Amino acid sequence: MSKLPNADFLHRLADIADAETMPRYRTELAVDTKFNEGDTFDPVTEADREAEIAIRAAIEAEYPDHAILGEELGQTGNGYFRWVLDPVDGTRPFICGLPVWGTLIGLTVDGRAEMGMMSQPFIGERFWADIEGAWYERAGKRQPLSTRNVGALSEAILHTTSPEDYHGDLKQGFDRLAASVRMTRYGGECYALAMLAAGRIDLAVEPSLQPYDIVALIPIIEKAGGVVTRLDGERAEEGGSVLVSATPTLHYEALRLLNGCA
Amino acid sequence: MSKLPNADFLHRLADIADAETMPRYRTELAVDTKFNEGDTFDPVTEADREAEIAIRAAIEAEYPDHAILGEELGQTGNGYFRWVLDPVDGTRPFICGLPVWGTLIGLTVDGRAEMGMMSQPFIGERFWADIEGAWYERAGKRQPLSTRNVGALSEAILHTTSPEDYHGDLKQGFDRLAASVRMTRYGGECYALAMLAAGRIDLAVEPSLQPYDIVALIPIIEKAGGVVTRLDGERAEEGGSVLVSATPTLHYEALRLLNGCA
Repeated sequence: MSKLPNADFLHRLADIADAETMPRYRTELAVDTKFNEGDTFDPVTEADREAEIAIRAAIEAEYPDHAILGEELGQTGNGYFRWVLDPVDGTRPFICGLPVWGTLIGLTVDGRAEMGMMSQPFIGERFWADIEGAWYERAGKRQPLSTRNVGALSEAILHTTSPEDYHGDLKQGFDRLAASVRMTRYGGECYALAMLAAGRIDLAVEPSLQPYDIVALIPIIEKAGGVVTRLDGERAEEGGSVLVSATPTLHYEALRLLNGCA
Repeated sequence: MSKLPNADFLHRLADIADAETMPRYRTELAVDTKFNEGDTFDPVTEADREAEIAIRAAIEAEYPDHAILGEELGQTGNGYFRWVLDPVDGTRPFICGLPVWGTLIGLTVDGRAEMGMMSQPFIGERFWADIEGAWYERAGKRQPLSTRNVGALSEAILHTTSPEDYHGDLKQGFDRLAASVRMTRYGGECYALAMLAAGRIDLAVEPSLQPYDIVALIPIIEKAGGVVTRLDGERAEEGGSVLVSATPTLHYEALRLLNGCA
């Protein structure tokens, strides 16, 4: 059986992804282009697909017995180790030119997320988790990541990507939570979860995630001291409605509000 | 009477601001800090104030007869030329570690916004307008800015910073507009308006702006081909509820929906 890869391999995969995503980001910046829904040239789809193909090739060369689940190409293989890939998480900010998208590369071991990488190549930032902990690096300077020890919901900063994703009971739950916190921010995608791991945001709710939206981020958040579960309290490796918190106490209090306890 | 300053002076002011804002951004990143509402150390307020003091000093040395309006220190002087300053526009993303805040430095001539600078120092980007046009620069590479020539509302990308800012008729108008566009994004602050000038976003609504939130951006957007007005159609130099559009046609159609015409 394979050993757990090391962080250098995560960075190598991120380098491979960056080489595919960066040339396709803001390709029309400052060019007066007629936008056309029917155009076959779709930079973000192309970035997603080409990056996934390149990451898969590198994994298959090094770890041929590992399974891979990718947003673009689905599942290949089966086994104890499974890579979970979203080369462009945040296709909408990618399209809008807002640098809060990222490349997500996660690894589950026997179903549990154990390693993860979030690369934001336009800014030049990496957030990752290996067996030693959770880390941030920019311009060659590495720091450990640590969530913030917020004492009470009323001091917490809450994030969700889009208010349009909430309906019915979940909307009522989110509104209860938003009314209890210090501040609510929108639009941050995976970058906001990285900022939670970095101690700048304290709670995040995403109502409808796929495995490839969250697997890479789970070890980054957990090893920074945070908590990630679905709203039913189960682990989030398979996606669903997900709550991320800076501390276990905040997580418990936020789950209560989201699930209908006043 | 003074002449209109040149772009070099705008960049000099941005350099001065960057030196005050950058050391105070993400000061707690990766440090396990107990957040305390009552703490007197407030990096964003300090960044805002110290940057405004420094920018003011540079303007006063060069153009002692110019008026200055700043978010932190109010209005000083009167006259044909008035600088309008917001050293940290987007205090909330600044606090959350999301790099969509910016330093806004605008100049009105006889009440009309004629020059403007938006600096995002963490990413290292500048968006500005001088008498020659609207420009983007990063890593020494300069490009002209140009809005996108979207043909129809149904193809347009809409942005607003926060859904919490909408109530009553304005909420109904915004919902009508959001239902008519291709996609709505949230959370981008001044960075989203810069991306509109860069042709990545097509419409932006901000319901409650102060002069210092918009003056610097008006010439950047106008000289890139876009349109900026209040929702009553008047010029936006004094703030209020503001619509920004990539083209005059989009602007007309969006104003109709926002103001209650179906």
